[in-house]
Amino acid sequence: MAELDFIQSLRALATHPAARGLMDDAAVLETGGTKLVLTQDTLVEGVHFLPDDPPESIAWKLLAVNMSDLAAKGAKPVGALMGYTLRGDQTWDQAFVRGLAEAAEHFGVPLLGGDTVRGRERHLSLTLIGEATGRVPGRDGAQQGDVVYVSGTIGDAGAGLKSRLGEIEASEALEAAYLRPNPNLELGARLADQVTAMMDVSDGLLIDANRLGIASEVGVQIDLGAIPLSAAYRAASGDTLETRLSAATAGDDYVLLFATNLPLPPLPQNVQVTRIGQIIRGQGVSLVFEGTPHALPKTLGWLHDSPR
Amino acid sequence: MAELDFIQSLRALATHPAARGLMDDAAVLETGGTKLVLTQDTLVEGVHFLPDDPPESIAWKLLAVNMSDLAAKGAKPVGALMGYTLRGDQTWDQAFVRGLAEAAEHFGVPLLGGDTVRGRERHLSLTLIGEATGRVPGRDGAQQGDVVYVSGTIGDAGAGLKSRLGEIEASEALEAAYLRPNPNLELGARLADQVTAMMDVSDGLLIDANRLGIASEVGVQIDLGAIPLSAAYRAASGDTLETRLSAATAGDDYVLLFATNLPLPPLPQNVQVTRIGQIIRGQGVSLVFEGTPHALPKTLGWLHDSPR
Repeated sequence: MAELDFIQSLRALATHPAARGLMDDAAVLETGGTKLVLTQDTLVEGVHFLPDDPPESIAWKLLAVNMSDLAAKGAKPVGALMGYTLRGDQTWDQAFVRGLAEAAEHFGVPLLGGDTVRGRERHLSLTLIGEATGRVPGRDGAQQGDVVYVSGTIGDAGAGLKSRLGEIEASEALEAAYLRPNPNLELGARLADQVTAMMDVSDGLLIDANRLGIASEVGVQIDLGAIPLSAAYRAASGDTLETRLSAATAGDDYVLLFATNLPLPPLPQNVQVTRIGQIIRGQGVSLVFEGTPHALPKTLGWLHDSPR
Repeated sequence: MAELDFIQSLRALATHPAARGLMDDAAVLETGGTKLVLTQDTLVEGVHFLPDDPPESIAWKLLAVNMSDLAAKGAKPVGALMGYTLRGDQTWDQAFVRGLAEAAEHFGVPLLGGDTVRGRERHLSLTLIGEATGRVPGRDGAQQGDVVYVSGTIGDAGAGLKSRLGEIEASEALEAAYLRPNPNLELGARLADQVTAMMDVSDGLLIDANRLGIASEVGVQIDLGAIPLSAAYRAASGDTLETRLSAATAGDDYVLLFATNLPLPPLPQNVQVTRIGQIIRGQGVSLVFEGTPHALPKTLGWLHDSPR
């Protein structure tokens, strides 16, 4: 696991409390009475997006995946810096800027700076600066007895990627989930004060739940039957134990996973939140299905150093 | 000029005053009584560094080029986020982390976060967050009658690259300037209150002086004979009009270029500051040599969308 070794070796440099030991979705920097939330995510062609994905949607996704980290911290965006690879294809670049403008307006994020470089491979990097006024939840506060929830539906983006690759019957709804994730910052802000732990689901529900459990030093028991699947997902893949496991390990969902022992606050309109499990003794994720323990799949989600 | 067109198209998204119209070295964000200085620079293998450059020095350079932007703003570092490409070469990665640790200690910068991605081509990206307590100079305040200064010496890094490529006789001092630039943050902080305009020299003295002149809507007249050359540079390249033009357009200097009509403040020890010209009527850079106007060379410095 080269990625984990590498991150481990970087921890010695992460001496500032804002770094949260490189264990969280974002850094949280207290400065002059405000809490700045800082996150940087990069999309690489052929790794995080397909070469023939529309540039407009790649720009949208670049902003959205970073917004998802802010949502998990209950933060609002302040601005973004972008690192962009110029490859000499001005039509592509113009389409990308159109998509970025649309996403920047949708999410309310001005561009503050960044840089452009030449390269053979497109690496699109965004640093997002957010601001939190209230409590900033981490992955590490979940307590035994908490209920575990997830927002939205799981597996749509993974199935959308399969649809784009021609591996399943084409579905516009699923491809939209893959191309244009839509993290809900209002939901994150409403939940931030009430949760014991919160994070966004980006690499797969099970791998991310496992990270939450390890950071909190608790067990996260998930009921496979409770995982919310969309109508489009059921129509494309059916609803079996196998397709539920596939949804729970697919990644790219950009929804919120959280634990709390309090009643839920009033939610924004059109937001679905589903109870999918509980915090138990232990460390990391475990599964039940129809009341019986179920073994974990070999792969819990997407690891950045495996080919996609 | 694809890069300039692209940046021009991004300006519509740079609505926040912190972005300074994407015309400056860094964004300056006022929040909760402090001024945060934000900059992001990326190094790409084969573009900004040679594949056989030592990973330790590439890490040093990644931090240093961003520190140089902070120096130009008179700011102190708070922390950094890094975007790193894993290519499966753990020896390389470990050497990189050693170099990053050394540079982080030298410059006093903790790592706050970031992300790792897989890719075929190494793109190493750093976002640096700094804080300024006093005035934050821009490129845009120079006034007719100001004197123009540059810190350090010019052209060493460019000659160091030639040395590494075997194009000139090998010189350890020049290669060190290329591999391990050493921006002076103390100097930047002392100058910040007294200059009318300041920027770092990264793409070449002439191209950067031209940018300062355009941003300030003034002429920047530079005396080629006054440009400070190091003993190592003179030893390797001689001291002719041609080698002076070569130094002034080479880039990678990471020194400070500034204009002021005030006496210089006390400087840090071992810092050389040289008067190289004056601010005149006009727009952009012009040259004199031995008292006579001299035509500008065809290329003023390094453009990011040209092959290096």
